Amino acid sequence: MKKFNFNIAIVGLGNIGSNLYKHLILNRKSIYKKTNSHFYLKYVSSKNKSKKRKIKIPKNQWLKNYSEAYTKKDIDIVIELIGGSEGAAKNLVFNALKNKKHVVTANKALISKYGDTLSKLAEKNNVNLEFEAAVAGGVPIIRTIKEGLITNKISKIYGILNGTSNFILSVMSKTNLNLKDVIKKAQSLGYAESNPKSDLDGTDAESKIQILSSLAFQSFINRSKINVEGIEKIDQVDIKNAKILGFKVKHLAIAEIKNNKLIQRVHPCFVKKDSYISNINGVLNAVIIEGLPIGKFTIQGEGAGPGPTTSALTSDICSILRGNIKLPFSIPNSKRKRISSIDISEEFFSSYIRLDVKDKTGVLSSITKILSKNNVSVKRLIQNPYKSKKFASIIIISHRSKNTNIEKSVRELGKKKFILNKPKFFRIEEI
Amino acid sequence: MKKFNFNIAIVGLGNIGSNLYKHLILNRKSIYKKTNSHFYLKYVSSKNKSKKRKIKIPKNQWLKNYSEAYTKKDIDIVIELIGGSEGAAKNLVFNALKNKKHVVTANKALISKYGDTLSKLAEKNNVNLEFEAAVAGGVPIIRTIKEGLITNKISKIYGILNGTSNFILSVMSKTNLNLKDVIKKAQSLGYAESNPKSDLDGTDAESKIQILSSLAFQSFINRSKINVEGIEKIDQVDIKNAKILGFKVKHLAIAEIKNNKLIQRVHPCFVKKDSYISNINGVLNAVIIEGLPIGKFTIQGEGAGPGPTTSALTSDICSILRGNIKLPFSIPNSKRKRISSIDISEEFFSSYIRLDVKDKTGVLSSITKILSKNNVSVKRLIQNPYKSKKFASIIIISHRSKNTNIEKSVRELGKKKFILNKPKFFRIEEI
Repeated sequence: MKKFNFNIAIVGLGNIGSNLYKHLILNRKSIYKKTNSHFYLKYVSSKNKSKKRKIKIPKNQWLKNYSEAYTKKDIDIVIELIGGSEGAAKNLVFNALKNKKHVVTANKALISKYGDTLSKLAEKNNVNLEFEAAVAGGVPIIRTIKEGLITNKISKIYGILNGTSNFILSVMSKTNLNLKDVIKKAQSLGYAESNPKSDLDGTDAESKIQILSSLAFQSFINRSKINVEGIEKIDQVDIKNAKILGFKVKHLAIAEIKNNKLIQRVHPCFVKKDSYISNINGVLNAVIIEGLPIGKFTIQGEGAGPGPTTSALTSDICSILRGNIKLPFSIPNSKRKRISSIDISEEFFSSYIRLDVKDKTGVLSSITKILSKNNVSVKRLIQNPYKSKKFASIIIISHRSKNTNIEKSVRELGKKKFILNKPKFFRIEEI
Repeated sequence: MKKFNFNIAIVGLGNIGSNLYKHLILNRKSIYKKTNSHFYLKYVSSKNKSKKRKIKIPKNQWLKNYSEAYTKKDIDIVIELIGGSEGAAKNLVFNALKNKKHVVTANKALISKYGDTLSKLAEKNNVNLEFEAAVAGGVPIIRTIKEGLITNKISKIYGILNGTSNFILSVMSKTNLNLKDVIKKAQSLGYAESNPKSDLDGTDAESKIQILSSLAFQSFINRSKINVEGIEKIDQVDIKNAKILGFKVKHLAIAEIKNNKLIQRVHPCFVKKDSYISNINGVLNAVIIEGLPIGKFTIQGEGAGPGPTTSALTSDICSILRGNIKLPFSIPNSKRKRISSIDISEEFFSSYIRLDVKDKTGVLSSITKILSKNNVSVKRLIQNPYKSKKFASIIIISHRSKNTNIEKSVRELGKKKFILNKPKFFRIEEI
């Protein structure tokens, strides 16, 4: 029978939590109209009670500590906004589901790591586990895969899943600033955290593509053999070179099925400058799906921040309020497949290689020899002298070559005495 | 209680109907996994039984005529694919709802005209009326507004809603072909119907924006004071001029709330060539939503054709199979607002005006006098002599001026003896 009254506890009251609190209070009537259920924002919990917040919380709404959110009988929905895949967040979500409470979470690290176990727990206990806000806040991609595209056979899902790194690359592309300075700028604007490690090293996007890939291919979350590179190694000069060559540098997360194997990868890519994805700038996220019968489908919006995340969290809450138990990954866990994955070593890529070299005879011949030995053939080669005439920068665009061969070449080149800086290598993505 | 078995009747077996039939048969298992309900494709109906089709239909599945789809007791879901706002389609949908059958339809003309009455009928009889396929097939925009963006306060919704006219404009932009030739090309490729009137005159997009606007603003469908212009009056030379001036010509449908009034308009626009919307080419559709808390949100995909439409129809069918009655416009009819609408006469637009004139003294002064009298001020003016030196083409980009004043100027100019062809006027859309 449909339930008509739900008590909600929000655990974690940072920017997102406070914004959600306010939004729920302001939209009480509209949510009732759309769900035919009432909710009561009954409890909140936060590590720091006395922190200055824009919202006023009545004293009787504070839980003594977060664990009350899963023990108290008068809580139906727990909103987990603590973050992190371990510790309090993990403890809260596991126990809330065990105690038959619905859970809404924005925690990609938790879902990508424990999503399968949590999904089984939710199914067993007949409660909802919703995580729209975990991937690309302002892009309702999870609900779209589960409902709007429900019977499509998806072959590929990819996109820009980390707003911070996309913002940084966009600024680097528009200015002459180097990575470090742009990170500072992003931090001062609130687009990067004080410790932006997971944004810069690709692990944030990794969690997200693992979740999307599991939904898209109806399989358990696959965390093995995924190639993850961040944006840390990108220099301003590479971005300039990309432009000259007709490309833009974008950090993409890609999951696809090839010959019944899953390939997942997260890395910076050179993409054609007039492609759709190269024009997604700033903090925007975008997801592209290729499937049948729909063809190619694209969705974009702001990836993070209190507004978009609140939009996603509220859509999850409303989904629970409307009634019906929805399975977290849209099909029963017993029906989810295990897809074996392969890494990218045998995949073919055209690539951009930049070598800073001593400007002396024999260098070019030595470079081309190494490439040729490794079956990497050169499509285009540009040698630019630096101002100081003793050094030169050599840019090589390779034909499509096996990833393992390109990487081996780059490693071998890196050991040569005439190489002045660590060689740079980026894959060219034909999308 | 959740129902676990549904009998389906498909009425209308053209390209779309046949494709849906096949898709449902092929995806029976996957649909059960995702909805926990079985369906039986029990009946079909079509004006022309003997037409050659790619699917084989057992004899006992044929209804004697379409009206059996609403009289037969063993039908739970009626899929209406007849088309048109009157006649059989109207009769079928009204009677199916009256007889407490769920209805799925791809019929934008019917929904935009009778959607409010049908919605009341569905709500009264506690059945679903779903119409995702009526607007932008490969873009699950309706479900996204109703669920993914559920508590957002939307202020503006707009986009490219007619794939045929977008295809035509894209080809005109890439080639030197004129409108008539491109229409023929579109017809030969199957992108335009043999009678493409509603695609070319904007009425197809009009129906769609009326439906979207009603969903976005939670109001009854508003069919009054909507400005509708098609692409018929666009010449190749206007597309070229747009390019020179840094624009592209796109046919947009736009609905927004300004000072609590609804403004709906459908017309060709000049849009900046580096804007998102100007890069939506071919048969693609795109919808952009501005709302709070989500910010700006964009969704794009193929607008029509059997594949995308089947994707949309199946998501509607699955929504019914999953259980729960969803209200057609997401809130009870008693809660839907009546928003009064205003036309665009008092709105301000920057505009492009093209005048083909006799090349003689006094013409320019006469033109600028008329503009000035009507408070339309000139931002840019370009006079190009035609090859025959007696004629010239004058292009004017106006500053933002009141729509009614621009139109009045264009009308007055059109009456002047020195004007050789009907003046062209397109609004410049700053998006």
